[in-house]
Order: sequence, then structure tokens, then C-alpha cells
Amino acid sequence: MISAIPPVPDSEFAERITKVQAHMAGAAIDLLLAFSTESEPFYSRYLADYWPNFETAGVLIPSSGDPALLIGPESGTYAGLKSRIRRIIRMPDFRESSQPQYPGVTLPSWGDIFTEFKSDTFGIAGWDLLPHFIYCNIEKEFKGAIVNADDIVRSIMMIKSPLELDLLRESARLSELSMSAVLDKIKPGMTETQVVGIAVAAMTEAGAESPGYSLWCTSGKNTTAAIGRPSLKKIERGEMVHLQLGAKYNGYSTAIARPLVFGTPGPSMKKFMQLGCDAENMTNDLMRAGVRASDVARKVHGFITERGYGDTILYGPAHGCGHMECEFPFVETSSSWLLEKNMTFQSDMFLATNKYGFRFEDAVIVRENQPAEELSSLRREVIVL
Amino acid sequence: MISAIPPVPDSEFAERITKVQAHMAGAAIDLLLAFSTESEPFYSRYLADYWPNFETAGVLIPSSGDPALLIGPESGTYAGLKSRIRRIIRMPDFRESSQPQYPGVTLPSWGDIFTEFKSDTFGIAGWDLLPHFIYCNIEKEFKGAIVNADDIVRSIMMIKSPLELDLLRESARLSELSMSAVLDKIKPGMTETQVVGIAVAAMTEAGAESPGYSLWCTSGKNTTAAIGRPSLKKIERGEMVHLQLGAKYNGYSTAIARPLVFGTPGPSMKKFMQLGCDAENMTNDLMRAGVRASDVARKVHGFITERGYGDTILYGPAHGCGHMECEFPFVETSSSWLLEKNMTFQSDMFLATNKYGFRFEDAVIVRENQPAEELSSLRREVIVL
Repeated sequence: MISAIPPVPDSEFAERITKVQAHMAGAAIDLLLAFSTESEPFYSRYLADYWPNFETAGVLIPSSGDPALLIGPESGTYAGLKSRIRRIIRMPDFRESSQPQYPGVTLPSWGDIFTEFKSDTFGIAGWDLLPHFIYCNIEKEFKGAIVNADDIVRSIMMIKSPLELDLLRESARLSELSMSAVLDKIKPGMTETQVVGIAVAAMTEAGAESPGYSLWCTSGKNTTAAIGRPSLKKIERGEMVHLQLGAKYNGYSTAIARPLVFGTPGPSMKKFMQLGCDAENMTNDLMRAGVRASDVARKVHGFITERGYGDTILYGPAHGCGHMECEFPFVETSSSWLLEKNMTFQSDMFLATNKYGFRFEDAVIVRENQPAEELSSLRREVIVL
Repeated sequence: MISAIPPVPDSEFAERITKVQAHMAGAAIDLLLAFSTESEPFYSRYLADYWPNFETAGVLIPSSGDPALLIGPESGTYAGLKSRIRRIIRMPDFRESSQPQYPGVTLPSWGDIFTEFKSDTFGIAGWDLLPHFIYCNIEKEFKGAIVNADDIVRSIMMIKSPLELDLLRESARLSELSMSAVLDKIKPGMTETQVVGIAVAAMTEAGAESPGYSLWCTSGKNTTAAIGRPSLKKIERGEMVHLQLGAKYNGYSTAIARPLVFGTPGPSMKKFMQLGCDAENMTNDLMRAGVRASDVARKVHGFITERGYGDTILYGPAHGCGHMECEFPFVETSSSWLLEKNMTFQSDMFLATNKYGFRFEDAVIVRENQPAEELSSLRREVIVL
């Protein structure tokens, strides 16, 4: 089945800009730049449907009136095809890391931008991503205050619209489909990288625009890494295999992760994996609108610790998802905020000893008075092939 | 045939550090940070064989003695498995963009770093990538001068060792193999994304660690974009199709790009494509050790302009390759430097009107007194299927 959920319409993109402008007014910010990169594209995708490649990008939003998409010198035509923001401005600061000079090409400077977009307080979303050299170029030309504006865009992005929820459901369906294709084809002797290639071919054939992040399959000792990349190591019988997959669909990304073993896992390996599965199920049950996020983290970590595996915990049991498979906010024992209806998360149970590790992970939608809606559940069990 | 070129040995990584330290002494820099991200990993891959995922990274090199790899809180085990630098330091500034807090985890600060790694002049490579917030955190704790050190690492990276050349040859073989797989299987009615999935599955089955960059296939109007991403559009007969592929092998990336048409291209389309093919061949012939890079760009652009297509040029005819498919330096009409033996480039001929565009692209190695060594050449012609 090829995907058929429509992309977000222009009208919903326009609403997002209007919401940001309303929040800007509340924070006395009269110009906002939302900065994005190839690997961290969440803001430019959310506000303009634009995912930079090679170059970087920014969405410039005045206190009222039309926004502009700021891009690098080579992306003009690409941005014209993809951007939902019609005004596109090429600037040298957004060029690629190979640093071409483009002799003979004259592009607007930050001085030109601030002459047109007058402002007293300039908010920057993507504060932790913005390169120092761009900050310096802005600071030279901007006479007012420059402030961190991440909270403004994030507070809007965190609650998903009905269409966004459908796009995430479709992403999860494609993620699950890629897991299914891998479970059908994976065999001892395949390389970790080859397994990822099978997943990518399956999801793109079914309608994914791309993987949602840098996917991996790891095996044996390589499974101890919470964050990984596949290697040329061949998968062997009896060892832990970690599948970390996920599809991007019209901008929206989820993940599905499962551990599996060829042959018979030892009883301690099996018991540890079952604990991880139970902890994910517990997380999905606890995540409900109105619940304090730290309570979810404390209860799940308490459960794992009671069972004797406390020292295998590396981070909180869930994190936001949307344009990124891992997006603000993270659910941790320090998270004092309340879960809200239509927030979306990855329940993400990674546990590891120094010999092997594994992850159970699925996307969920927070609901009221009931467990989270699970967007994937395929073989959430100790998989033995 | 599965790839069998060995990865770069630890000894060659150690030599790279020693070379950087020698260049640091010449520039009176006594501590260097080479910063990298998931999408711009060239420095950390070159100096430590480390490609961050989700988080960022830095390689810290003192004037003498052992370097350290600086990573985010979740990548400790991953870095332990991959890094050729043994000393690994987890720091909060290298965390992922979802901004987890990791309550209860205490990690070293920049103050701790500068207490151990004493320095008067701190050089930063990856100047245009370093986030402003990290720069501020460094500046608060560092008492000396902070300077741009890109030239130090780049000047070493630009000339490839014999093993690096073999790794690039293998990357190009895998890139060509993926092109071949696509040309065997591509059909009208396939989506652009599906075509990319076929390429990824073919290259990873044959030994690639991953695609070398965000690959694309575009068709029709979408081919006008110099930088692109594949969409769910279906390929049609008679329209331009742009294949932009490339494999990463043990850290090294090349690209191969070809235009093709199903059915019969019109005579003007055919003539335009043939010009692009001729211009790439001319570039490969001109790129020789001792030649000024700007002369290559001027001659190739002159040739295109004489044929009447000058307004279809967007950038210079070649750019460096190595850890990135597009890496410093770029060959432009302003490039006053001389080509050297064992520099490696992508000859990259992208031309577009407002109706369609195309690219011929292949990796090459600069040689003395003869045309560049071409690492791929598969069907460098006007491909009609």
C-alpha cells in the first residue's frame, strides 16, 4: 500500500506563522530567525516545509506580515520548488561547508535584511545550532537586543494538529513496514549496513521520502552503543542484534527499535530484554494528559531499578518526536512540565550492560484518561529467529 | 564483489595528529579544537574516525602529547567502539538538539578542560560550524586568544595518502555500482524516492557503510534544482531524470551524477546534455598538478559560454572531495591556488534552464603532466533508456 496522507496544506503553514507572531508579541520580540541545518532541520521544515541539503537555512518572521526563507547561494531553485514561504532570500552566510566564493554573485547582507525588517528585539530559535560566525555577522548590523526564542516556536510545535498526527501515524506505518521487511530477510552472515539498506529500500518503495534519521543495525558488542551507526561486521548466531529503523513521511519522523537473536538467547539475556519490553509498555501506559513528565520517568526508572537493572539506564524513558525522530522535550526525572493531549513521543527504552544492549522503541500520541495511542507495536516481544 | 580495502590504520591517524601539531607550532597555536556535526563530520572523521550521530563532537589537540575526543553525554560507548583517539571526554555542550538534561550526571566543563589543557592561543577548526553558545561557554573560561584554525587542518587533509586514494577509488566503485543497479531497474512510474532506495540497497549490499550524502533522484521540473531531494513524484517518459548517487566507504565519499531520459529527448535537450558531458571531460583533462584552479574554471566556463549556455552556470566546475562528497576547496574563477598531485575532486557539471537541469559528476585524482585519474566513468554520455 502506497501512502496517501496529503502533505500539510499551505493554509496550515500560514497558521503556524500567525501563531509564532502571536507568541512573539507576548514575548516582546519583533523579529524572529529560526535557524536550521541539514541534520537539524526541524524549524525550517515546520515553518516552511524546507529541508536544507549541503547548505543551511533560516526562517525570518517579522512581528506582522509575510515571513521570508533565508537560504544559501545554490538552493534558490530547490527552495522555490519546496518552500511554502514564497519570499526566498539567498545569503552568503547560509552557504555549504566547502565554502565556495561564488565570484561575481552579489547577495543581500544582514545590513540589507535589518534595513527592511526593522526590529528592536531579535529572537533566535535554534540558539544552540546557530554558528558563531553568523551570530557575529548579525551582531555587527543589528542595533537592538538579541535573545533566545526557542521556547516560542517549540511551544507551538509540541502540540500536533489532526493532520500532523495522521502524518506521524503514516510515518510509523512505514517504519513498521521496514521492520517487517528486515525481519523477513535478515540472516546471519549479512553485514549490519546491508540490513539498513534493506530497510531503506522497503520504506522508500512504500512511500517514505527518506529514512527519518541515520538508521542502524548493530550486533554483538556493537549493541552496547545507545547511539550507533552500522558497520561492515557480519551478524552471528546467538548474539544480540539491534534494529533501529524509522521512516520520514512528508516531513514527519518516527522510529521503531527491536532487539532480536538468532538461535536461543541465554536466560539472563532473555530476562533483561523482557524487562525492557515491560518498561516500554509501562511508559506507554503512564503517559497521559495531565501527568507530570518527571513522574513517568521516576516510576519507570524505579521499576527498572527494583528489578536490579538500575545501572543499565542512560537517559529518560521517552522523548518528543515530530519533524525529528528525537525532538524537544525529553521525559526525564527532572521534567517538571505536564504532558498534554496530542503531544507525540518516542517511548525509548535503551538498556545496556558492558557486553550487550538493546532498545524497544515506538511512537505514541498522548491522550486523555487512557494510555498513549501506540503508533507501532509489531513484535514488541523478545524476538528469536 | 564485496569491498576489501582496509580501513585507515591507527598509525596513520596518529601521523595526522602529529602533522596538525607541527602546523599548530608554525601558527603559534597551542591548543586546537576541530568541531564536527552529524551532517558536517569531516574533521572528527579525519582525526578520530568518529562520525557523530544525533550529538556533535570535537577533537581537542594540544601542542604536544595525546589528543582527546570530546562528545555528547549519550555517545560514550559508541565513541569507545569507533574512535581512534583513546581519550574520550563527555561534555554537555555536545548533547543532541532535543536538549536532554541528564539529571544526576556530572560532566566536565570547559573550565576543567582548560585547567588540564593549558593554552595561550586556542585555534578552532570548523569555525563556521561552531555554535555560538559553545563559543560563549569557551570564551567565559579561556583567558587567551581564540582564532580560526581551519587552514591548519585543511592544508593537511587536502593532499591524500596512498591508502586514502584507494578508499576513494573504492567509494567511487560502489557509487558506480549503485548507478549501474539503478540503470538496470529504473522505470517510468517509479517515484523519485524509490529510485534512491534501490541505490542505497545496492551500495550497502556491496560494502558501503552508508550513502555519502543525502542522495537524490529528481525528474521533470524538479531537475532544475542544483541541490535537491527526491520527492514522491513519479518519473515520466520524455522528461529529464537526474540521478545523484554516491557511497561512503570507511569514511570516504564520492558522487556520481548522470542525466537520463526515457524515450527520445528533443534535439535541444540532447545538445545541452552533450555540452555538459563535454565540459566535464574538459575539466578532467585540465585538472593537473601545477595548474592554477582559476584557470580551469575560466576555461571551462569560457567553453560553456562560447557555446551559448553561459547563463546556465551556477558555480565552479569542480570541488574537493574526501570525507565529504563536497569538501574544501572549490574550483572557481576566483581560486588563485595551484592544483597539487593527489588532491581529489568531484568534477561537477550542473547546468540548468528554467525548464530542466542536469549534472554530470565523477570523482578524480589530480596527477602530474597528465589528465586527472577518473574514478568513475560509467555511461558518461547522454543516456536514453
